[in-house]
Amino acid sequence: MFTIVAERINMTRKRIREEVRKRNAAYIAGQVRRQAEAGATHIDVNAGGDPAREVDDMKWLTEVVAGSTELPVSFDSSSPEALRAGLRMCNRPGTVINSITGERERIESILPLVGEFNTGVICLTMDDAGMPEDLDGRMRCTSGIAAALDRAGIGLERAHFDHLIRPASTNPGQAPFILDAIRRTRIEFPPVHFCMGLSNISYGVPARNNLNRAWLAMLIAAGADGAIMDPCEEGMMNTLYSSRAVVGLDEYCIDYLRASRQGRL
Amino acid sequence: MFTIVAERINMTRKRIREEVRKRNAAYIAGQVRRQAEAGATHIDVNAGGDPAREVDDMKWLTEVVAGSTELPVSFDSSSPEALRAGLRMCNRPGTVINSITGERERIESILPLVGEFNTGVICLTMDDAGMPEDLDGRMRCTSGIAAALDRAGIGLERAHFDHLIRPASTNPGQAPFILDAIRRTRIEFPPVHFCMGLSNISYGVPARNNLNRAWLAMLIAAGADGAIMDPCEEGMMNTLYSSRAVVGLDEYCIDYLRASRQGRL
Repeated sequence: MFTIVAERINMTRKRIREEVRKRNAAYIAGQVRRQAEAGATHIDVNAGGDPAREVDDMKWLTEVVAGSTELPVSFDSSSPEALRAGLRMCNRPGTVINSITGERERIESILPLVGEFNTGVICLTMDDAGMPEDLDGRMRCTSGIAAALDRAGIGLERAHFDHLIRPASTNPGQAPFILDAIRRTRIEFPPVHFCMGLSNISYGVPARNNLNRAWLAMLIAAGADGAIMDPCEEGMMNTLYSSRAVVGLDEYCIDYLRASRQGRL
Repeated sequence: MFTIVAERINMTRKRIREEVRKRNAAYIAGQVRRQAEAGATHIDVNAGGDPAREVDDMKWLTEVVAGSTELPVSFDSSSPEALRAGLRMCNRPGTVINSITGERERIESILPLVGEFNTGVICLTMDDAGMPEDLDGRMRCTSGIAAALDRAGIGLERAHFDHLIRPASTNPGQAPFILDAIRRTRIEFPPVHFCMGLSNISYGVPARNNLNRAWLAMLIAAGADGAIMDPCEEGMMNTLYSSRAVVGLDEYCIDYLRASRQGRL
């Protein structure tokens, strides 16, 4: 199984923000269902943008999302209040908190919620010194976060790491060390999962799904077992099925062949 | 630069065989030009199928291909006579012989031509014991072929390795050790190049280009700098541009952006 945290319900996107402001539940529910039908395993919910309204918006969004799908939610916020508000309303098996980092303040404010609500957690490999620009730096971050999870009594199997990548258009050449970080993380911390962000790689270029798809194939080859992505983006699920078939996670191409028969490629 | 050995002019394909039998030069020239326009760096020519006719067919094909493009040819045969016939007619800079293996008979019969005509050579990692099913076996093959090249006075920079892969539909899970073999080959034999076959991965599944594209992205991430492929296949050049941008070989996405502006994605 590949974890697909579907990213469309995010109030930093203009259209979503507008429809949430209008309390247009039909529109949001439609977006949720489209993502679920495309293959999402989690619906990310980000009510950010206006701190004064985030808790209210998170509650409204959680209600709409929970009513539109049986999938668990990925609660996406740096505000403990917003996270708590959402988690109180909907905490299905598989729920994740998005996210902690190695930053002390973030660990202190968010990690207790992971313990309290017994959720999974997305872990971004950056810390108080910033986002390390090499493999060793990312592994130091990974170790730091793993130690914090351990201290909090949270099993590593509940962690989904995202080794953040910068855009190819502005910071070329990061992909190789990020792929190395995935391979090293698998070796050094076998229980952990991944939830790699796809879209950052393609910031600033046209037809972004092309780069996102190539990046997804590479991530799967490196051993990533999940991504935060838009499963409705053209060709993304095709690349996911194809890549899993290529590396043998989809043995004998069973899932690929079924998706092909069902016209889902 | 990425080496794209374009594979369509191959008489094991029914249509090509028929048109060669009819001596339909216009059809063959059209296929050559399509591949060249799509981005080929080499035109593979395979006149195999009927040993009694291979030398004659190779001569005719070489004349037609050489008259249709300025690109160098990849002479694709296990017959020294056919290779020699083609090489005498067209030996442009960049010409490659496709292929040797670690098999003694193949090395003894083909490698002298690489020296005599001063060409590049595609090297398949199999030997008299067959096609090794693990990384160590492939590296033993690679070392054996590298030693044979060395004994023949052929610099490793003239070698383009193809770590052959079996179909995902029949032999799932080979991709990881083949990708490891590329990484190991780059470390142990830095001068060598690659010319990885793409299409074998997708044998037996529908919409083969989907798997071929995912495999190409993974190969590029592992460090392969060339492939034998069909550049006219839907989306292949898109994946090539996208993957090189992602890994930073196309710095700041310059080539990707140009291809996008020119409508070539």
